[in-house]
Amino acid sequence: MVKERIILDVDPGHDDAIAIMLAAKNPKIELLGITVVAGNQVLEKTVKNTLNVCSHIDIRVPIAAGMSRPMVREQIIADDIHGETGLDGPDFGEITVELDKRHAVDFIIDTLLESDGDITLVPTGPLSNIAMAMRKEPKIVDKIKKIVLMGGAYTLGNVTPSAEFNILVDPEAAHIVFTSGRPIVMMGLDLTRQALAKQEVVDKINTIGNKASDLFVDIIEFFTKTQKEVFGWEAPPTHDPTTVAYLIDPSIVETKSMYTEIEIWSQLSYGRTICDFFNITGKEPNAEIAINLDFDKYWNLIYDTLKMYS
Amino acid sequence: MVKERIILDVDPGHDDAIAIMLAAKNPKIELLGITVVAGNQVLEKTVKNTLNVCSHIDIRVPIAAGMSRPMVREQIIADDIHGETGLDGPDFGEITVELDKRHAVDFIIDTLLESDGDITLVPTGPLSNIAMAMRKEPKIVDKIKKIVLMGGAYTLGNVTPSAEFNILVDPEAAHIVFTSGRPIVMMGLDLTRQALAKQEVVDKINTIGNKASDLFVDIIEFFTKTQKEVFGWEAPPTHDPTTVAYLIDPSIVETKSMYTEIEIWSQLSYGRTICDFFNITGKEPNAEIAINLDFDKYWNLIYDTLKMYS
Amino acid sequence: MVKERIILDVDPGHDDAIAIMLAAKNPKIELLGITVVAGNQVLEKTVKNTLNVCSHIDIRVPIAAGMSRPMVREQIIADDIHGETGLDGPDFGEITVELDKRHAVDFIIDTLLESDGDITLVPTGPLSNIAMAMRKEPKIVDKIKKIVLMGGAYTLGNVTPSAEFNILVDPEAAHIVFTSGRPIVMMGLDLTRQALAKQEVVDKINTIGNKASDLFVDIIEFFTKTQKEVFGWEAPPTHDPTTVAYLIDPSIVETKSMYTEIEIWSQLSYGRTICDFFNITGKEPNAEIAINLDFDKYWNLIYDTLKMYS
Amino acid sequence: MVKERIILDVDPGHDDAIAIMLAAKNPKIELLGITVVAGNQVLEKTVKNTLNVCSHIDIRVPIAAGMSRPMVREQIIADDIHGETGLDGPDFGEITVELDKRHAVDFIIDTLLESDGDITLVPTGPLSNIAMAMRKEPKIVDKIKKIVLMGGAYTLGNVTPSAEFNILVDPEAAHIVFTSGRPIVMMGLDLTRQALAKQEVVDKINTIGNKASDLFVDIIEFFTKTQKEVFGWEAPPTHDPTTVAYLIDPSIVETKSMYTEIEIWSQLSYGRTICDFFNITGKEPNAEIAINLDFDKYWNLIYDTLKMYS
Repeated sequence: MVKERIILDVDPGHDDAIAIMLAAKNPKIELLGITVVAGNQVLEKTVKNTLNVCSHIDIRVPIAAGMSRPMVREQIIADDIHGETGLDGPDFGEITVELDKRHAVDFIIDTLLESDGDITLVPTGPLSNIAMAMRKEPKIVDKIKKIVLMGGAYTLGNVTPSAEFNILVDPEAAHIVFTSGRPIVMMGLDLTRQALAKQEVVDKINTIGNKASDLFVDIIEFFTKTQKEVFGWEAPPTHDPTTVAYLIDPSIVETKSMYTEIEIWSQLSYGRTICDFFNITGKEPNAEIAINLDFDKYWNLIYDTLKMYS
Repeated sequence: MVKERIILDVDPGHDDAIAIMLAAKNPKIELLGITVVAGNQVLEKTVKNTLNVCSHIDIRVPIAAGMSRPMVREQIIADDIHGETGLDGPDFGEITVELDKRHAVDFIIDTLLESDGDITLVPTGPLSNIAMAMRKEPKIVDKIKKIVLMGGAYTLGNVTPSAEFNILVDPEAAHIVFTSGRPIVMMGLDLTRQALAKQEVVDKINTIGNKASDLFVDIIEFFTKTQKEVFGWEAPPTHDPTTVAYLIDPSIVETKSMYTEIEIWSQLSYGRTICDFFNITGKEPNAEIAINLDFDKYWNLIYDTLKMYS
Repeated sequence: MVKERIILDVDPGHDDAIAIMLAAKNPKIELLGITVVAGNQVLEKTVKNTLNVCSHIDIRVPIAAGMSRPMVREQIIADDIHGETGLDGPDFGEITVELDKRHAVDFIIDTLLESDGDITLVPTGPLSNIAMAMRKEPKIVDKIKKIVLMGGAYTLGNVTPSAEFNILVDPEAAHIVFTSGRPIVMMGLDLTRQALAKQEVVDKINTIGNKASDLFVDIIEFFTKTQKEVFGWEAPPTHDPTTVAYLIDPSIVETKSMYTEIEIWSQLSYGRTICDFFNITGKEPNAEIAINLDFDKYWNLIYDTLKMYS
Repeated sequence: MVKERIILDVDPGHDDAIAIMLAAKNPKIELLGITVVAGNQVLEKTVKNTLNVCSHIDIRVPIAAGMSRPMVREQIIADDIHGETGLDGPDFGEITVELDKRHAVDFIIDTLLESDGDITLVPTGPLSNIAMAMRKEPKIVDKIKKIVLMGGAYTLGNVTPSAEFNILVDPEAAHIVFTSGRPIVMMGLDLTRQALAKQEVVDKINTIGNKASDLFVDIIEFFTKTQKEVFGWEAPPTHDPTTVAYLIDPSIVETKSMYTEIEIWSQLSYGRTICDFFNITGKEPNAEIAINLDFDKYWNLIYDTLKMYS
């Protein structure tokens, strides 16, 4: 079996933590490292959350801290959704893993330059680390096999009527990524709003009864609360794990090729992923946009992977 | 029965013609006049089409020609959809009705100023006439009972990925209307894409066998062809008549209150109706946005009204 | 002597009043009418000021009230400069002239349509009336001989760092005028900041001792005060009369051809007149931009004209 | 004598080369290193030009190559002004100096982090290196003593009517620098157009007769030609050396405090330095903007410094 070699770029974040659990254990994925970016909370906290998750369920890969703020715009965070720590809810023990000495931007550059072009980048937060790396060392661009990201929406945003959080936090970074010329698969809100952690799903995972499943259940409990308060969702959408799930089994997600641009010129529409669903512009698509989720397959995959933890 | 007193503002256009037929004959509507604007074709042609339709099925109301181009931006037309004349397809006889001497902008102003605040404006084309009237004589604004318009989309556009035709043709006019403070009901593409003239619908109307139903059938035949060529729709969406149908029977259309802004600052997102579906901004809604159509009620109403023609 | 036939479009405003005095009496000008627009103050007040000035010094031409607000954007006024009435300072007697029944937009349209293409438009306020007329009746555009306007700046603005008042009040109207294809002469701040009403100039005019010179002196006295308070100018720039002075004697103003665009896409640079001084873009100039004033000739012309009043 | 400790950030470019000569030899400057950025030409060429200049006149400081393209926008270069090599004109011998192993962004970060807050950054090209360093490691910002940059204009641009080359090449980087909160001194075109290398100046420097003065003369000869062809200047403006000259002797340049913003929202005004000359906005100035040059002092300083070369 050929494994997907990936760098996971995260800002935990409740759903990021689930993505980490999936990527670290599923046998179809070779997790080369985790890079951390500010997003759901400030960098100090997203780093700490990453170290906590990896310590808790014993993940040993390089972890590198990256951009503490967006490339151009002022910083925004999502403490209304993810709480004061950025990963409120679970209790973590002692941190037992260490940060890599390198800046995430340099870790990404070094890892890609040393590779044979077989590495997929999997960003589940703002694209600041990825885009900075592309600009600091343009030679890496051709080394990227694919970028499978969580972000955007072709219909309705979640932070403004126009924009989704990850893209809105750093629209210029998103612009750089979407104009990079590399293959992009976008898991936008149109898809992730189908990936609801319904009660029956959580109940089933709860039966596993290992550290990973317990962490999952704790995470979802808190996430359910804020998603309900802020958006009125009965069950919380699990945005970030859809990226890793897609890489493990692409048949879980139906995509459609669309020419996609990031709005960086308008304050009103700032951060919108303008997806040409009908190919009205006639421009060559630069992204595969996720449109439909196989709900059962998705949750079975998560169940099966969490069960692999001891 | 209290009739809805309306001014119908059109740019025929195939679906405009159906809206005219509905408004002129349905007993719940009192049609005070028809104003014409450039849109689907240049003004000369949309005026001629209006005169043709009214002559053909014997509609006698004031008809006033208005704006031949958008308020600010350069002109665009939709000859790919509506053909060289703007209403290709039907054969019309001699024109037997005359244009009002007044400019549509002045007709709208005069009619509103003389009214008791009971007039609803029903624009099914670009909003140039309505917005120019509001600016030329701001006193009319408070006289407007309601504006029920066809235009916009809260999801996907039809001329650019961001924008719908009527709004994109004159975004500044739309901005003026949406910030006017008057009640707005917006029949956007999200709704009108449900109003498909399917074959069984056309077949049933064809059984009526009067001038109006024959015209309807001719119109749909041509419209089907271009909608299929340009967008791939099997049956054409009948955008414009949804406005009049809603006024006749509001239960035909489910709406949702949304704060809505028009994007006039970005070339990429120009003309987008930014609808705050989830009320993320917390701003007071300024428009009722149509979201669901009662398909059967809608087509029954059209059938019943066309049957009233002799 | 061939007279310049003009429509003067004003928003008095202290310097507008001087432009009116110049245009109404100088034998080289045939003043066909005065149209009034909101600008320095709200329309009600700019109209009253116009009637006051014309009554006071016995000017009998058609006066038509026009746009009470800008075409697209929200209204701004300049009460910090022109005071509560818009023409604070002078005491006026009874109003003895009447408003034309027509809207200024229609007065401009009618007058131009009836003409042989020999009429110059002279706007000294926001361009709302002119642009609305151009859009309501596009046929007038080719009838306009020339537009000599006060507005803009190729260096520094006066209401924002980017923009001059008249243009900023209605940037979309300015965009319409500057893209109309008709010859434009722009008296911007770069020029009008040279047209300072220095004490010696005022003293000399004061020696005339007729109603017009007295009004001039009263106007300048108040204008000096606010210009000093707001901008720190020792002597106030007489912006608006430069337009009429240029028409009477073009040798008073040195101009340079520049391709000029109005910024309507950016909130930060909104209303800037982007003048291509060095012809960097290589685009065909669409405006003559005033760069140098013959100070003595200018003030002599004003002196000579005011002296003609009885 | 306390020396100014600086990092010079360049994109040679003819005038950059003069700035290097000034900074490397004048006893008031301690040149800690030279960082190179793409700008007047692509990075490969600006690096080669830097190595050539330093080899030619024997400058031994760390030289680090940096950003090969702007942070966000697509790349533009100025080969019309600086020729195919980016420093056409002079003949250079063998390259005898070596590049530092570090990326310029990391060289800037390391040098600042190790400092006591006494380092001034002197960018004479696009601000990509400086801004990327600020974003990659925000801790450096408070370590920067001052930024003395060449770029911008408060009146007229040189690449578009709105913008100057260095800022237009990377407006987002400029935005980052101007919002950094550190003291900025901006040598814009308003100043550097006064720093003309007139014939008498060149003749006098030519009498020195050392390698540095010979290089200066060769540089100016080519620069004169393109500046005349493209802009019509009789003598070329020496933009970049004004930064170093100001640091050596601040009395050479008169400045004025202005609140300054970079236009990054408008395609038409993209890259404009919006300087609030009159403090219209009332906002706290964030930059000292150069307005007047002491021409004689400036050229004497250059003459005196070039004479110090052996």
